[in-house]
Amino acid sequence: MPFMISKPMRFGDCDLTGIAYHPAYLSMLVDVNEAMFASFGVTWKELMFERHLGLPSVKMTIEFKKPAVYGDVLDFNVHVRKIGKSSLDLYTVVKVGEDVIWTIEQLIVMTSTKDHKSHPWPDDCRAGLERYHHPELAA
Amino acid sequence: MPFMISKPMRFGDCDLTGIAYHPAYLSMLVDVNEAMFASFGVTWKELMFERHLGLPSVKMTIEFKKPAVYGDVLDFNVHVRKIGKSSLDLYTVVKVGEDVIWTIEQLIVMTSTKDHKSHPWPDDCRAGLERYHHPELAA
Amino acid sequence: MPFMISKPMRFGDCDLTGIAYHPAYLSMLVDVNEAMFASFGVTWKELMFERHLGLPSVKMTIEFKKPAVYGDVLDFNVHVRKIGKSSLDLYTVVKVGEDVIWTIEQLIVMTSTKDHKSHPWPDDCRAGLERYHHPELAA
Amino acid sequence: MPFMISKPMRFGDCDLTGIAYHPAYLSMLVDVNEAMFASFGVTWKELMFERHLGLPSVKMTIEFKKPAVYGDVLDFNVHVRKIGKSSLDLYTVVKVGEDVIWTIEQLIVMTSTKDHKSHPWPDDCRAGLERYHHPELAA
Repeated sequence: MPFMISKPMRFGDCDLTGIAYHPAYLSMLVDVNEAMFASFGVTWKELMFERHLGLPSVKMTIEFKKPAVYGDVLDFNVHVRKIGKSSLDLYTVVKVGEDVIWTIEQLIVMTSTKDHKSHPWPDDCRAGLERYHHPELAA
Repeated sequence: MPFMISKPMRFGDCDLTGIAYHPAYLSMLVDVNEAMFASFGVTWKELMFERHLGLPSVKMTIEFKKPAVYGDVLDFNVHVRKIGKSSLDLYTVVKVGEDVIWTIEQLIVMTSTKDHKSHPWPDDCRAGLERYHHPELAA
Repeated sequence: MPFMISKPMRFGDCDLTGIAYHPAYLSMLVDVNEAMFASFGVTWKELMFERHLGLPSVKMTIEFKKPAVYGDVLDFNVHVRKIGKSSLDLYTVVKVGEDVIWTIEQLIVMTSTKDHKSHPWPDDCRAGLERYHHPELAA
Repeated sequence: MPFMISKPMRFGDCDLTGIAYHPAYLSMLVDVNEAMFASFGVTWKELMFERHLGLPSVKMTIEFKKPAVYGDVLDFNVHVRKIGKSSLDLYTVVKVGEDVIWTIEQLIVMTSTKDHKSHPWPDDCRAGLERYHHPELAA
């Protein structure tokens, strides 16, 4: 099963042509990434401030398929494609109803905020991420 | 003389009705506040990371007079009304051409980021702020 | 009763000193204003695109009392102080637990998006706003 | 020659770990895209409101190479790799000094805002884009 969460298109997420301002999509994605970790009991606050670990994205490939408009509800479906030693390969499909609005492939690396080097996944993160693991989707 | 700086209304600053999204005005104001300090040689980066001082706003009164639209250039005129021991009372008038678009009264307190208590203005900040001091505008 | 809604402090709402970036508070407030109208069945989307009405703020007075940090949950309590012919006077208290974090007095004017003139409250808006009316709080 | 423009990392562009909040990079990129068109005399405002044309991105591939911090100045180098009938393939390298911070491949399609269908490049846009054309960089 993917991790699933819905986000409304807010007034402030739209540009003056009435469709989504694409940087707002990336801001929603940060919330979605954070919510996925919270779903298995790991808060980013604790990761950052107590364990001194961060989760920077190192690569993103985004496809915008159809425009979304004010009032649409975006359904995020986050698939874990691969869990490496300290990396995470996510594939997220964002829909409004049955229509695919945008998709993103995202490579994240768990990183120490002390020396900015990669850091192996802690056991609780790895176990949590396994819930959403779909190895058949790996590129 | 007030501190003066111009900022264009960017595509991303507008809402879907085509006028300014008001949180974007506050984001511009942060840049304007920062630029005023830079104008007399004090960078916020150095204040925050070397002197451990911050400049939170504690009160703001904003009046929105006329809408601004995409492509307008906003002229910020920042008047220093009063420099207290650790406080700063600013009055900023934002115009497009001769039209007043919005105004803001802003009370800032120089604060230690170590104990979150107020901290007297350093001499270089006080001397710089004096350049833009208009005591006759004090409320 | 005030209109009440809670919003978490998101990762992207914080500045590099770890506390709320104040323009993010204003962006949350837009969502809160919109949610209050939705609570009595009036969507901004329908107001804007079918009735050609907008709800610009014309004056705001904001006091920042205490900093909020990443992970805090902000409780917004929106009091309707006065409903004029086409104006709305709101007083919103934002708390984390028992602590008041910030407050805002906000004057909104219902406006035609066709001629940018004030427009009387439609009956459904007026009736909905009455639910949250606290005339004893009027300034 | 690529189109070149510099943007400072602003206070509000940083997250609470002190590095760039990646949605802020995308917001800067919108400004950079707009400035490139302005460099050859085509404003987005006129494109959108008089010609009813928009410039949505349909695909983006982003690599984040090194973190940028508050106070850094980002130099954007925008290379036009290919100009199709109505499409535009851009490759942008963002540096701080000699260090590459992030890169983006961006596919844009000129679109009618009336029917949301692709629209051939107007002559003035095509001529302007040719200035920055580097066919040897095409993927």
